[in-house]
Amino acid sequence: MDTERLERQIRFIVEIDRLKQVVRQTILTDRTRQENDAEHSWHMAVMVFLLSEYANENQIDLFRVMKMVLIHDLVEIDAGDTYCYDEHGRQGQREREEKAARRIFSILPVDQAAEMTDLWHEFEDRITPEARFAAALDRLQPLLNNYTTEGVMWQKNGIHREQVLERNNVIDDGAAVLWQYAESMIHDAVEKGYLAE
Amino acid sequence: MDTERLERQIRFIVEIDRLKQVVRQTILTDRTRQENDAEHSWHMAVMVFLLSEYANENQIDLFRVMKMVLIHDLVEIDAGDTYCYDEHGRQGQREREEKAARRIFSILPVDQAAEMTDLWHEFEDRITPEARFAAALDRLQPLLNNYTTEGVMWQKNGIHREQVLERNNVIDDGAAVLWQYAESMIHDAVEKGYLAE
Repeated sequence: MDTERLERQIRFIVEIDRLKQVVRQTILTDRTRQENDAEHSWHMAVMVFLLSEYANENQIDLFRVMKMVLIHDLVEIDAGDTYCYDEHGRQGQREREEKAARRIFSILPVDQAAEMTDLWHEFEDRITPEARFAAALDRLQPLLNNYTTEGVMWQKNGIHREQVLERNNVIDDGAAVLWQYAESMIHDAVEKGYLAE
Repeated sequence: MDTERLERQIRFIVEIDRLKQVVRQTILTDRTRQENDAEHSWHMAVMVFLLSEYANENQIDLFRVMKMVLIHDLVEIDAGDTYCYDEHGRQGQREREEKAARRIFSILPVDQAAEMTDLWHEFEDRITPEARFAAALDRLQPLLNNYTTEGVMWQKNGIHREQVLERNNVIDDGAAVLWQYAESMIHDAVEKGYLAE
């Protein structure tokens, strides 16, 4: 057994426990509190295999999508969660996250650090069909929670329809059927008064 | 598009948000609060691919392990988390969980409900190499958190070494190398006073 290798892997596993403390701008369906990144990642991972039939390309590597989804927010352990509608907060975000990726992934053995970095870049670049499907789920998951909780967080943050449509239309690139569903949900949210016109 | 099918899938996705409210007898590494089932499942899922090289059998289907791990605790939405050292609480546990599985999985379209039920039974029965590896990670994850937090929850619940060894030795059936690591961690925990003799 390569003890140093296993030690590094275990150290990484302990380190990423901190993802459970990164709080997001989405609340749970019971409205008791805000969701964290670990919960969001778990929820998305279940969606990967439940909704795979809606991916725009049907020959995608679902296991890679799963891995991407599970690790896509790890950089936020250092860089924090940037609210998607916060234009100011998004300045310098990529730089902060690149730095975080270097520190966090380098805890792992070299081969796994490289794999993680590649997976994270693939997710961020949104070029492969796998990354596009992952991005679609990354948008759909909070949208479902926002809709289910009658838009509490949209109202709190003064968000209106155009912003939500613009933010979420990348769902179309990964899963057109899910975008069709999401669009009608957004319109319904406006009609019901959950989301400002 | 089959609207009813997608509606059922979405309803299920919204329903399982409640896993984030099922609190476990493990605390986060920063000791601020107890972990929930969604966080635990996410953590295990990352471990599936980081530690796959240690699975006793090397031809296992990692994607199936991933799916199993992600859904293995969903029944606790209805049945609650049963503390592994609570002999009294474990009476009738299987029955409660079977009932929960029927209700929760039946929200899904028939084919996916069947797949989920099969995956959950496979996990519970611990016969396939995939299920054994999943079970190993289900034990290792809380063990790491207990060790890192100097055994706070072990002490709170009056747990001693023999119980921890007996509970966790199923790690050996799924990943002997990880059991070797876990065993020495348990002994170290006793030496450091985190865990009673």
